[in-house]
Amino acid sequence: MSEPVPATPTRFDLRALFPVLRWGRHYDRKSLAEDLAAALLVTVLVIPQSLAYALLAGLPAEVGLYASVVPALLYALFCSSSALAVGPVAVASLMTASAIGDFAAVGSPAYWPAALTLAFLSGAMLLAMGLLKLGFLANFLSHPVTSGLVTASGLIIAFSQLKNLLGLSGGGNSLPEVLVSLLPQWQQVHGLTVAVGMGSLAFLYAVRLGLKPLLLRWGLAARATMLLVSAAPVLAIAVTAALTWAFGWHQQGLKIVGSIPQGLPPLTWPSWDPTLLRQLAVPALLISIIGFAESVSLAQTLAARRRERIEPNQELVALGAANLGAAFTGGLPVSGGFSRSVLNFESGARTPAAGAFTALGILGATLLITPLLFYLPQATLAAGIVVAVLSLVDLSLLKRTWGFARSDFAAAAATLLSTLLLGLEAGLALGVGLSLALHVLRTSRPHIAEVGLVPGTQHFRSVQRYTTRSSPRLLALRVDESLYFANARALEDHINDAVASRPALAHVVLLCSAVNDIDASALESLEAIELRLREAGIELHLSEVKGPVMDKLQGSRFLQQLAGPVFLTHYQAVAALAPEVLHDDAAP
Amino acid sequence: MSEPVPATPTRFDLRALFPVLRWGRHYDRKSLAEDLAAALLVTVLVIPQSLAYALLAGLPAEVGLYASVVPALLYALFCSSSALAVGPVAVASLMTASAIGDFAAVGSPAYWPAALTLAFLSGAMLLAMGLLKLGFLANFLSHPVTSGLVTASGLIIAFSQLKNLLGLSGGGNSLPEVLVSLLPQWQQVHGLTVAVGMGSLAFLYAVRLGLKPLLLRWGLAARATMLLVSAAPVLAIAVTAALTWAFGWHQQGLKIVGSIPQGLPPLTWPSWDPTLLRQLAVPALLISIIGFAESVSLAQTLAARRRERIEPNQELVALGAANLGAAFTGGLPVSGGFSRSVLNFESGARTPAAGAFTALGILGATLLITPLLFYLPQATLAAGIVVAVLSLVDLSLLKRTWGFARSDFAAAAATLLSTLLLGLEAGLALGVGLSLALHVLRTSRPHIAEVGLVPGTQHFRSVQRYTTRSSPRLLALRVDESLYFANARALEDHINDAVASRPALAHVVLLCSAVNDIDASALESLEAIELRLREAGIELHLSEVKGPVMDKLQGSRFLQQLAGPVFLTHYQAVAALAPEVLHDDAAP
Repeated sequence: MSEPVPATPTRFDLRALFPVLRWGRHYDRKSLAEDLAAALLVTVLVIPQSLAYALLAGLPAEVGLYASVVPALLYALFCSSSALAVGPVAVASLMTASAIGDFAAVGSPAYWPAALTLAFLSGAMLLAMGLLKLGFLANFLSHPVTSGLVTASGLIIAFSQLKNLLGLSGGGNSLPEVLVSLLPQWQQVHGLTVAVGMGSLAFLYAVRLGLKPLLLRWGLAARATMLLVSAAPVLAIAVTAALTWAFGWHQQGLKIVGSIPQGLPPLTWPSWDPTLLRQLAVPALLISIIGFAESVSLAQTLAARRRERIEPNQELVALGAANLGAAFTGGLPVSGGFSRSVLNFESGARTPAAGAFTALGILGATLLITPLLFYLPQATLAAGIVVAVLSLVDLSLLKRTWGFARSDFAAAAATLLSTLLLGLEAGLALGVGLSLALHVLRTSRPHIAEVGLVPGTQHFRSVQRYTTRSSPRLLALRVDESLYFANARALEDHINDAVASRPALAHVVLLCSAVNDIDASALESLEAIELRLREAGIELHLSEVKGPVMDKLQGSRFLQQLAGPVFLTHYQAVAALAPEVLHDDAAP
Repeated sequence: MSEPVPATPTRFDLRALFPVLRWGRHYDRKSLAEDLAAALLVTVLVIPQSLAYALLAGLPAEVGLYASVVPALLYALFCSSSALAVGPVAVASLMTASAIGDFAAVGSPAYWPAALTLAFLSGAMLLAMGLLKLGFLANFLSHPVTSGLVTASGLIIAFSQLKNLLGLSGGGNSLPEVLVSLLPQWQQVHGLTVAVGMGSLAFLYAVRLGLKPLLLRWGLAARATMLLVSAAPVLAIAVTAALTWAFGWHQQGLKIVGSIPQGLPPLTWPSWDPTLLRQLAVPALLISIIGFAESVSLAQTLAARRRERIEPNQELVALGAANLGAAFTGGLPVSGGFSRSVLNFESGARTPAAGAFTALGILGATLLITPLLFYLPQATLAAGIVVAVLSLVDLSLLKRTWGFARSDFAAAAATLLSTLLLGLEAGLALGVGLSLALHVLRTSRPHIAEVGLVPGTQHFRSVQRYTTRSSPRLLALRVDESLYFANARALEDHINDAVASRPALAHVVLLCSAVNDIDASALESLEAIELRLREAGIELHLSEVKGPVMDKLQGSRFLQQLAGPVFLTHYQAVAALAPEVLHDDAAP
């Protein structure tokens, strides 16, 4: 027997809980230099992103910075990934706004404590799931569903940023909500804001689509190019903030970030209102699951490129600790961010220490440079968000799954559409439910192939696909599915029909190489099939029953009921029951 | 490719919708005689049962008779089963009482119309499911779940009849409700009722447990014995009714059936109150599904014993028509009854005409003999119900599934307990949900076996269970599950771990004989696995990929990515990649 997931030590092992105790012992000057260089670059990227995602969540801008300090430090202490960078992310911020917006207005005194409560609940859930080793649950989020969710969120967020790019107000958690909120304001579009916002957006896309290929063509290394392109948002921020300061644009109606308090992240206390806890429980669970699934998939992709491994349950613990940290230091729900993690990886981070250094860099920023951000236009931040989230949008999956399997396409399309139209929670529930339902539905209608001997081998394949040898006295059926309650009757029907059209039949052999399990309902069906065949003068046999299934059958009366033995190989079954099939074809 | 379910004619065929047009043409005198004899016996059994189940549903006794006339005639017109007898049944009556009891008091003017509406909704749903060919949905009710539901219902009904056996009032839809309702009345137990009720119960059990084995030992044929035993309730009814009339027991507090109107079933009209329709929709769906699943499973069992077939979708149509009939002729939701169907079968019914004759017999009873039922004690009817429903109780399933598979045991036990404690609806939802969840959970952790050549064959089996030959240069893994999103990552982990401990490895071959499907998520995992192995200097190969899976892979880039071909047989793969394994073992 083999275990699909590597066994984790059952004895309590401090180094299992704190991976830092392992990698920290070998930490050397070279790693330090590389981690510090990466941290510097990531810090520059993360500052504007953190401000923007806090605003997206409906919170003051500085909350984004706070959520990038202690949570990132705690994550570094517990994590098993050397590349993942943790902080506020687009999808979690959208879900935070959606969850809290139902019962507290943006800017009201109840709003921020509710976000802290959400982070606390999410952290507690992630931690509990990690300690209970429930990391495998993320596997139930299939790739089409995750991709549909992320693409739809990207589109919703991009559209919701229109308000900041056009100088309007309002928003929503689904595409119709956003459009219904913004469209009636078309006459209030603010020219200066459009100029700054759309200008920044044009600049960022020009760098991405124009400068980047150009630099690469000029022979600049891919990594250097990426670093230069990553610096573009900082340049946009510096220029638009300077212009706003110089020309007093904020007095002409351009919204700016305004004063951000200077100082350490505050010690905070989530709200313990039982009604609030109850209302936020489901959103917290969804934020946890989506955040975890996304983080672990990203961390695995990055780790694989360096031949490293990550431990999903340890990542749950680390993300849980990070969110608990966010709850008590003025943050919001955090998760592994895509662009910051990729930048961290590409700029050479060797260990989780890089994440800790980034956190210290942002701490420095909250202490020193926040006054410089006063004149920063919100439209410039919005442009940065739009570029970041549209890079998450991946419609090619729809095309690929359409060609590959309609059920995957259906799951992706249903998730994408329901998220766009109804919001993230409905999209997630519908996507996961539909994927599982389609899988179960498929297994409830098993493919059953009649097989014959492939001449020159001891191998049996479908008589419809290969030239095979068989006998009218023996019907060999390969059942291509585990037998369980949902398909037990289909097997009965199939065998009844197959037998009806073969008057010379004396033996039915079920080739069980693809039967990975037999449950109690299917066992009853097999007993009924055997009884019925026997009354018609036909013997039922099994061949190639696998070890684990055989172990289960041993305890049942079905095996005693069978006329003959269970054949180890289908070739032996045919040799015993219809040797004429093998005639001078036996030797390979 | 093979279809699991026989194709039904796509062209409209009147004989498909009305099977009577087929069997009716060959109807002869012999069939008529056998059908008439069976109908006579079933009529005698069905009269007291129908009265009792109507009372159980909270309706006047005559409603049970009405529900056995037109519904049974309509069923005979549409059905594909020659043995199933349709009318009021225990489980549907319990569910009716539970559904209507929430918003109408027993005996109130709104109660009966609500039952008619429930029958109408249930009939419309069954008919729609039949016309849409949704009969396969009943497959998702696994045997452990159905059995748990029926056993629990039997226990609840038996306990709820205590009130009639003890002369109390009240009741409920779950065991706690029944006990809470009855226990406080322990001082009001009515002696005469106990004497009649418990006396009848003792008599019925004496016949069943004492007389039946005795008759069989005396050499009486099994069928004759069964018929005699079936007549016992009628004897109990006749004797207790006569005694009640003679001694005026009804004036001493013994509850009797009382006056039952004489005449044809009335034409009725369900209530169309939209609130009521909305509230009854879910209960109607549950009654439909459980009634259908039970009926079709019973009909299949009986049909198999005569080498006949039933058509589930046609049964849906027939049960739908029967319930619609019940809605417009003063009935209540109906379904295939266990004891009446078995009696019908055992007493020799050849065609659905037997059911029609039974319906005519009961029509005769409603016209003629209802005055005779005036003095019938309700306690005697209750004793009959208790005997009937306790025969549905089957706790042996728990024992059998415990030995066979814990997941089946869990589904059966959870359904049984949740139905007992929370009622039928909760039990059904929990049972079906749990069975599916356990199935999906199991497939999310696939069994993966390392295989080697069984010497003297061309067959490969688990190296842990068989003496096999293999090579350190080649790792052959048999994945015992379809690869899909829920287990894609588990495969990645397993291969990573397996490769890590084998320094000499040059080839990994996935033996795909048990892989019945590969979805988009799993394909991405396979691509990732191949890439990673290639970077480590190891080649990934596939063998024995089945036709339908190969069709899907053809369109993907994964196949082009592979270093070698997909091997038809695993033996050929080993012959090509590590021929030293085959050394002088090749010929069979």
